[in-house]
Amino acid sequence: MDNQFSTVMIPAADMQLCFENVLIKKEFSKERAEQIATVFTNNSVDGIYTHGVNRFPRFIEYTQKEYVQKEATPSFKSKFGGIEQWNGNLGPGISNAIFATGQCMKLAAENGIGCVALANTNHWMRGGTYGRQAAKAGYVFIGWTNTVANMPAWGAMDARLGNNPLVIAIPYNNDAIVLDMAMSQYSFGAMELSVMKKEKLSMYGGFDSHGNITDDPAAILASGRPLPVGYWKGAGLSLLLDILAAVLSGGLSTHEISNREAEYGLAQVFVAIDIKRLPDHSVIPKLIEDVITDYRKSVPQGEPASITYPGERVLLTRKRNLEEGIPVIKQVWDEILKM
Amino acid sequence: MDNQFSTVMIPAADMQLCFENVLIKKEFSKERAEQIATVFTNNSVDGIYTHGVNRFPRFIEYTQKEYVQKEATPSFKSKFGGIEQWNGNLGPGISNAIFATGQCMKLAAENGIGCVALANTNHWMRGGTYGRQAAKAGYVFIGWTNTVANMPAWGAMDARLGNNPLVIAIPYNNDAIVLDMAMSQYSFGAMELSVMKKEKLSMYGGFDSHGNITDDPAAILASGRPLPVGYWKGAGLSLLLDILAAVLSGGLSTHEISNREAEYGLAQVFVAIDIKRLPDHSVIPKLIEDVITDYRKSVPQGEPASITYPGERVLLTRKRNLEEGIPVIKQVWDEILKM
Repeated sequence: MDNQFSTVMIPAADMQLCFENVLIKKEFSKERAEQIATVFTNNSVDGIYTHGVNRFPRFIEYTQKEYVQKEATPSFKSKFGGIEQWNGNLGPGISNAIFATGQCMKLAAENGIGCVALANTNHWMRGGTYGRQAAKAGYVFIGWTNTVANMPAWGAMDARLGNNPLVIAIPYNNDAIVLDMAMSQYSFGAMELSVMKKEKLSMYGGFDSHGNITDDPAAILASGRPLPVGYWKGAGLSLLLDILAAVLSGGLSTHEISNREAEYGLAQVFVAIDIKRLPDHSVIPKLIEDVITDYRKSVPQGEPASITYPGERVLLTRKRNLEEGIPVIKQVWDEILKM
Repeated sequence: MDNQFSTVMIPAADMQLCFENVLIKKEFSKERAEQIATVFTNNSVDGIYTHGVNRFPRFIEYTQKEYVQKEATPSFKSKFGGIEQWNGNLGPGISNAIFATGQCMKLAAENGIGCVALANTNHWMRGGTYGRQAAKAGYVFIGWTNTVANMPAWGAMDARLGNNPLVIAIPYNNDAIVLDMAMSQYSFGAMELSVMKKEKLSMYGGFDSHGNITDDPAAILASGRPLPVGYWKGAGLSLLLDILAAVLSGGLSTHEISNREAEYGLAQVFVAIDIKRLPDHSVIPKLIEDVITDYRKSVPQGEPASITYPGERVLLTRKRNLEEGIPVIKQVWDEILKM
């Protein structure tokens, strides 16, 4: 790789301390700095660099432009049974999402199923963070966020849909099975990285400017036409997740967010189910293990190791990055050190 | 089209009467015959022939083999707050799903959000039926079913995942926006039809026996490797929907269903949210209309008419089939008339 890709290996503890120091310098409270630094570090440890260390500078920029209100906390709007609406007051997406996840678990503990709809919040970085938070506490989690428009409708040229990540998490093996799935096949971050590495995508990922399906990330970035997962299906799911997030929270939908000068003021939904309340809950771990055992019997086309459950590869990356340090693009790390 | 494709046009009322008569002859009660005939007819009116008229003979066959218990009704298993477990007692999937949808709406009316997990049920035919049932009554609906294994894991050759359709419905414009999305890109029914018509699929739909991605439906049917929506993403989502259906209902998962001599004894989840209970509910119709209005401003690559919201095309088919009759493959209709 050329110079722009030289990486430095940063121990997780050093990264966390560095993030905390930057946040405190930028006038975050000690408590909040610690919370946010932890999530950015953990996302990086897990290999989700695009929503970890690589994204940290933009998060700081957004707080300075006041798209993100550093110390804001969610305020209660309404409650009926197992469903609550909260206003995120433009606080940091990470802090708001940790709160909302905790709150939907409380509702689930009381009601079996709980739903928190959060308006006026910000980018939660990696949605899987909150899925894992809930699943490690023993809850099933289903959540999603809307985003700025970044993907065309099926058959369209211009982006009017968000990629609206959907997260589903289930307790498993002292950790969690975590699906964290944006509605575009590849993230812009992943495509930009492939361009820099002069690589093609592993599968078709969008259309070029002539409307031909392609695995060339540069052509997709140029056309602004990433492929929705499952073509028309993911486009449809994206539309519905946006409508639901806005309807349930009373917040903004993708087209309204897209009229702003930057992506802020999102709507998110957090649903938890307290499976400990189910009468057969003691058999659940074995039920899940049996499904995974059968899944692993799959006959691989290539490498057996490629057949993994959602979130499984993260465990390997986590182990490696904790042992060897987190690989960070030097240019990114230098920028953060100067903050 | 060749002879095997000659179609007859059947008025909806005639189709319904025919189905009812067959069901009564097969010893269904009058009430149940009417309910099941209505759903099979409506699915056909809406153009979902694979889960309407074309599937009716197999439904009858399954009742005769007693995979489906004609007059069984769900029995209550457990309740905690907004979540209930029911045993479908192998009743007709249509009857059980109509019941479960009604029950999750009742729970939502009491709790804001309600969830019914149904074990030991059968194929619900078209999931959108229940989404529309809930949305027309003013509820948001999220539901899914597991199925027999019919799709390989990502990177695998042999089918160990179901295509596990996911349904999301939202009240809209005196009807509903209804997403009804199987986790395989194309249904086997759609691919078989394309083979008979000697057509390619509109997009890549699976792998051939050499592991190459292809739009040739015959090659996909031969390999048994339909493409999951969004490649690894839809495969992961399918796995989680199956685990959740089995965990929440205490029912069977895909690998257990696949060990049976036929597809019966499924697990399903029905979630309703009573949006009338939200304080801002009066603005919801406008909020949705604004999203759809923006969506329609999309610049089309081809025909503008191709940019539709989920469930929109069904409305056109419904209108046409109600006016002109339902086109049915003559061979299928002849078989039904002989029952």
